[in-house]
Amino acid sequence: MHATTGTSPRIGVWMIGARGSVATAATAGAAAISAGSASSDGCVTDLPPFRDASLPALADLVFGGHDIVGVPLPARAGQLAEAGVLPAGILDTVRAPLAAADREIRDGAGREGEPQAAAAARLAADITSFRDRHGLEQVVVVNVSSTEPLPDPDPAFLDLDTLEEALATSTDLLPASSLYAYAAFQAGCAYVNFTPSAGASLPALEQLARRRGVPHAGRDGKTGETLVKSALAPMFTQRALRLRSWSGTNLLGGGDGATLEDPRAARSKTESKQRSLEETVGHAVEGQVHIDNVPEMGEWKTAWDHISFQGFLGVRMSMQFTWVGCDSALAAPLVLDLVRLAALARRRGEAGALPALGFFFKDPAGSREHNLTLQYEALTRWATAEAPETGAAAANSPASTGASR
Amino acid sequence: MHATTGTSPRIGVWMIGARGSVATAATAGAAAISAGSASSDGCVTDLPPFRDASLPALADLVFGGHDIVGVPLPARAGQLAEAGVLPAGILDTVRAPLAAADREIRDGAGREGEPQAAAAARLAADITSFRDRHGLEQVVVVNVSSTEPLPDPDPAFLDLDTLEEALATSTDLLPASSLYAYAAFQAGCAYVNFTPSAGASLPALEQLARRRGVPHAGRDGKTGETLVKSALAPMFTQRALRLRSWSGTNLLGGGDGATLEDPRAARSKTESKQRSLEETVGHAVEGQVHIDNVPEMGEWKTAWDHISFQGFLGVRMSMQFTWVGCDSALAAPLVLDLVRLAALARRRGEAGALPALGFFFKDPAGSREHNLTLQYEALTRWATAEAPETGAAAANSPASTGASR
Amino acid sequence: MHATTGTSPRIGVWMIGARGSVATAATAGAAAISAGSASSDGCVTDLPPFRDASLPALADLVFGGHDIVGVPLPARAGQLAEAGVLPAGILDTVRAPLAAADREIRDGAGREGEPQAAAAARLAADITSFRDRHGLEQVVVVNVSSTEPLPDPDPAFLDLDTLEEALATSTDLLPASSLYAYAAFQAGCAYVNFTPSAGASLPALEQLARRRGVPHAGRDGKTGETLVKSALAPMFTQRALRLRSWSGTNLLGGGDGATLEDPRAARSKTESKQRSLEETVGHAVEGQVHIDNVPEMGEWKTAWDHISFQGFLGVRMSMQFTWVGCDSALAAPLVLDLVRLAALARRRGEAGALPALGFFFKDPAGSREHNLTLQYEALTRWATAEAPETGAAAANSPASTGASR
Amino acid sequence: MHATTGTSPRIGVWMIGARGSVATAATAGAAAISAGSASSDGCVTDLPPFRDASLPALADLVFGGHDIVGVPLPARAGQLAEAGVLPAGILDTVRAPLAAADREIRDGAGREGEPQAAAAARLAADITSFRDRHGLEQVVVVNVSSTEPLPDPDPAFLDLDTLEEALATSTDLLPASSLYAYAAFQAGCAYVNFTPSAGASLPALEQLARRRGVPHAGRDGKTGETLVKSALAPMFTQRALRLRSWSGTNLLGGGDGATLEDPRAARSKTESKQRSLEETVGHAVEGQVHIDNVPEMGEWKTAWDHISFQGFLGVRMSMQFTWVGCDSALAAPLVLDLVRLAALARRRGEAGALPALGFFFKDPAGSREHNLTLQYEALTRWATAEAPETGAAAANSPASTGASR
Repeated sequence: MHATTGTSPRIGVWMIGARGSVATAATAGAAAISAGSASSDGCVTDLPPFRDASLPALADLVFGGHDIVGVPLPARAGQLAEAGVLPAGILDTVRAPLAAADREIRDGAGREGEPQAAAAARLAADITSFRDRHGLEQVVVVNVSSTEPLPDPDPAFLDLDTLEEALATSTDLLPASSLYAYAAFQAGCAYVNFTPSAGASLPALEQLARRRGVPHAGRDGKTGETLVKSALAPMFTQRALRLRSWSGTNLLGGGDGATLEDPRAARSKTESKQRSLEETVGHAVEGQVHIDNVPEMGEWKTAWDHISFQGFLGVRMSMQFTWVGCDSALAAPLVLDLVRLAALARRRGEAGALPALGFFFKDPAGSREHNLTLQYEALTRWATAEAPETGAAAANSPASTGASR
Repeated sequence: MHATTGTSPRIGVWMIGARGSVATAATAGAAAISAGSASSDGCVTDLPPFRDASLPALADLVFGGHDIVGVPLPARAGQLAEAGVLPAGILDTVRAPLAAADREIRDGAGREGEPQAAAAARLAADITSFRDRHGLEQVVVVNVSSTEPLPDPDPAFLDLDTLEEALATSTDLLPASSLYAYAAFQAGCAYVNFTPSAGASLPALEQLARRRGVPHAGRDGKTGETLVKSALAPMFTQRALRLRSWSGTNLLGGGDGATLEDPRAARSKTESKQRSLEETVGHAVEGQVHIDNVPEMGEWKTAWDHISFQGFLGVRMSMQFTWVGCDSALAAPLVLDLVRLAALARRRGEAGALPALGFFFKDPAGSREHNLTLQYEALTRWATAEAPETGAAAANSPASTGASR
Repeated sequence: MHATTGTSPRIGVWMIGARGSVATAATAGAAAISAGSASSDGCVTDLPPFRDASLPALADLVFGGHDIVGVPLPARAGQLAEAGVLPAGILDTVRAPLAAADREIRDGAGREGEPQAAAAARLAADITSFRDRHGLEQVVVVNVSSTEPLPDPDPAFLDLDTLEEALATSTDLLPASSLYAYAAFQAGCAYVNFTPSAGASLPALEQLARRRGVPHAGRDGKTGETLVKSALAPMFTQRALRLRSWSGTNLLGGGDGATLEDPRAARSKTESKQRSLEETVGHAVEGQVHIDNVPEMGEWKTAWDHISFQGFLGVRMSMQFTWVGCDSALAAPLVLDLVRLAALARRRGEAGALPALGFFFKDPAGSREHNLTLQYEALTRWATAEAPETGAAAANSPASTGASR
Repeated sequence: MHATTGTSPRIGVWMIGARGSVATAATAGAAAISAGSASSDGCVTDLPPFRDASLPALADLVFGGHDIVGVPLPARAGQLAEAGVLPAGILDTVRAPLAAADREIRDGAGREGEPQAAAAARLAADITSFRDRHGLEQVVVVNVSSTEPLPDPDPAFLDLDTLEEALATSTDLLPASSLYAYAAFQAGCAYVNFTPSAGASLPALEQLARRRGVPHAGRDGKTGETLVKSALAPMFTQRALRLRSWSGTNLLGGGDGATLEDPRAARSKTESKQRSLEETVGHAVEGQVHIDNVPEMGEWKTAWDHISFQGFLGVRMSMQFTWVGCDSALAAPLVLDLVRLAALARRRGEAGALPALGFFFKDPAGSREHNLTLQYEALTRWATAEAPETGAAAANSPASTGASR
């Protein structure tokens, strides 16, 4: 099913944080599944409802990206196998594809004193060079790097012209995730933000995406506690059970644990977790969310949530859940799903935020729906639609000539 | 909102097990809410989407029923207040309405050697007498009595004529819950089965309901572990996470705990719990469900579920939840919802099983949908529809003249 | 068993925070148990091993104390009954005893500009006046007030003479809990610190206790998560299972929740929680402890702990526990136990910290033993010893003449 | 520390079930630790209090045993590494020692029509041949085979002479675990029963052990839920918190899960679990214990316990714990501990049940103490005692000549 015909157009996947755990697992997994060495468990777009969607095959994806970490992908895969994220049995199969992808990784680091307009042009050139070198139909840019602190508000974020003027001289106006979104759009690429960082969420960048006729999706992949929340919270509202408090503690190690120990970085994450809950139930709910760095837990996360609610005649009841998951293993297949779906949107000429992809995110761009089942219904409807539901076809988009439909 | 106008038609609620915990809580709660002494938390049909449905007001419900227990309703309410099911503060308010309802309770016990046809006629007469005495538009019969063992298969269950012939002489062919359904249909009443007992699920009774033009709904109210299951299980399928095992233990006291200690009675319950899971995910899942009688827990139940699943590249993960609930407090508002909705169906002339009410049940009659959100969507669509979606209007139904639409 | 003979010497209980939840529950409970209206569940000193200890009867306790809260004890008891801390059935029985205790409560608030030496003399006079007015053998002073921030180190805390010199003029050197300890010792009374506040833990106050020949015990009653820790942590060390991390989240409302929301106050509590664990296992353990204020939880607390450990050949395993408790109901009987035991120590003439009472505390004065069973063994040995084990009899202690042994 | 001197006497370890998970892990672990490739985490007798006990070194243990399973030990170790019980990194180190141990495994299967006296002689000959072939000081026989159903009572179990008379002709009087105990004693060997099977618990076998001057210990290794119980239950009694119910569910796969699916085999296990609890708290406690076979869990076990208790003035509270453990990894080091301790007892000439080893067992032979800390104290006292505490030195015991003390 995943074999490429050799004639189907190939799609580039340009990952920001290309040697991180998620990117390594996604790259290794795409190779293992394409080779028939692993099942596609965890890949949403391989489920029956997506059979009729015109999605690129995993075997047609070509991987590259930016990273400043030096450990090459085959070595990172070995580390992940020791941590239980990848099965040791696929390491031989994926060594060559990982080495190939590793050769396409560029150092994306900022340069001392370089204005951000110049930096963006440099990053965009890396991406278009990758596209041209491999004869790709299009490239999807995916942010899977470490969570950044959210930037303070700035008027330049609200208007594209103001922003572009500022970038000509400023060296630090945009956070890295937004600079990459800017570069992706300039290169005519779809952009996916799997992290809670700002990314393409600034209004000025939405303007740019629409002007360039490229789509984007984000933000903050819904892989654990919030995923469960978005399945459970509607139960309380549908049953008229009033939520009194919802408290959560997340224990995690790995890079994410260390990053989120910084309260400024954690804020963007805990805020989007709470927002989705309150938007679902329609009123404020007591309770806090903690993210603890527990280094010994490595790539694994344990979350505990306590929910207190009130039913008939005010009787108080409670429920709790614990979630023991491996974040990289949960995120990696969703990254592949998002690449396939963003490529489809690009082919269709959709521009701007893709609300139908809200299913994947804690803080869905262009949507306030958090009910997982309704998100799933919207996603499958969109993916299998004959014609684009949102946005007009951008006929003069440079990439649209490669659209296969 | 809940005050009756004095001119709106009144609806009878005839409960089988009318002095049980659920019936007592429902009767007391309807009185307390109507009097403005309690909020309608837990009542689904009071949620905004139901505002446009033509449902009877709680204040228009008149309560009665069958029971062989002798403790009168006001005394039962006192017991429930001590157990934390009812707030002590409403006891004064509900004393008179409970006493009134208690006067409408008849001893429904079988008589030695009485053929079931005669018994059904006697029970139906109790119901029609109640209707006539109070000038009710219609009566909804609700089974909230103890769970029975499921009957062994019998050819008479499959055909109405065969059944009626057999009832003329047999004294024990039908289990009590099904005999009540038979009597309700004969009396032209809607029937709701909140228990896992057979009730109206026999094909011969479905024939009778359609012939008489009356609706029914059931079975096995979804109030705890299975409610959570129907919210959570779709998350795994939508995310392509393969369920490996789902194990559950339910600790409960009260009458239910004692009844379900009998493995034959528990079987009907644990089977419907497992069926709904496997119908949702589409394949067999390892794991058992236990129901333990722990008398000291009284009216409260604690459930623990352990779920093991597999994601990308076969990585195994798990989640657990615990649920601490008061079954009577969860069931009582749903009984009121079901009465209002069944009365609406009866007014509309719908006949036979009501699949749109599957939202409330573990083993929904006429439906195999278990996804809670999709059930909720179907329910609200049905309740607010202009015209009946299922069944033809039964123009010559004796109760249809009272329909308010 | 609890009836007083009328001739046995009576013991005063002077509570700092006398109208708080713990004090109210302790006072009401002592009355209810003495009246035969409640069992002595939760009272350690009523267990069989203490039968031979010469402890005062509950019925011989006379209650009073300091508080700045105005709500009288009978009204506070009503609030606690609504919160599920006290059974409604004892309210009639305890109304008169609570009213009597309430008449013995004085406003202990500091006075603008009053040097602490003068304040202490005033507080001590309140206590001795209480003793004389009721002809009490002795008074035990118990701190059950809100947790204070820990004071910054000060040289005066290390030496009694320096301290007394400073108190003559300073208006804020000692935190309130320590000022009360100072006053208690000056009045010749035993002092028990049930809170994590500094209390008698300053070396200068230990000197004073020994000079005056009075005992003290503390600090931070072990009633929930840490109680479980002190039972569980030894299991890991005894089985050579290496603890990797121990993380905890405590959700609580009530006054305690609000107080501990202040990180400075919480620090004294979370620090003593971690210290006891690391002292038990002998090495640093990863993990954090959170105390969340969740007002809707009222007097109830839910704690969740996650423990990760490593066994044979490095295999990693985990356990979790949740604890749903009512802190006041857990603390109140221990306060009565501590009064009885401190009175015994005073009778025996023991002076200074009482390490044998470490069983009750997170941060036991005079001991680093945290294994609950070893603490229990030490306690029962001490309580039933024929002669004092620690400290010399203080023959010239004013209260020792009343000793019954 | 674990290196043998080459001159110290070597000790045989004869395992019944020598190719099972526990035996494989113990044999591999002893080799890995002796080689310095693994730490001794999980080995109780390597803790500081045992430094002065004269215990044999792990490097002085020589492994063999009976099993009817054909998969050789090195292959079994490979399976356990895949299941996460053994680290893959030690497989090379332990291959040769495992192959050597595997050559010492004999088929212990019963022979059609063979009287049990003859079978016992044959099994004993296997053991003595092993001892002689390797010049061992002594052999400790350890039962780590699958759990058997408990036998029905029989008069022959109560008296040694009656038993021996019956064994001369009966082919199935004794369950296998007891037949092995009989054979071990006849061969002058200490016997350890790590399973819940009957083993040496029959009075007639106790007589034989005393007559032969050999010690034994058992039964049912305390490795998971019951281990936690024996640490936690004393907390409730020491704090006068009355246990109302204690319910447990154990989910496990592997061979144990399948064996315990047979209710007759499970009975011996669930009974000993409940007994230890009720012996600890001194009264009956509501609640059931379930053992579910969930094959997909493999070697891992998840247990959930729910505890309901009552405190001051009858307030009801609860706690829960979950335990995620690998039974083989928990049991294997204890097997090594028990071998070392039983060898010490044999050297000292102690005969009959060893109550000081109750620390390791759910149903300790010769003791009713279940408090884990008190058991640990008793164990360390016994292990470091100068002279035997129990039993007289059996001067004429054939093995005592090799005693090193």
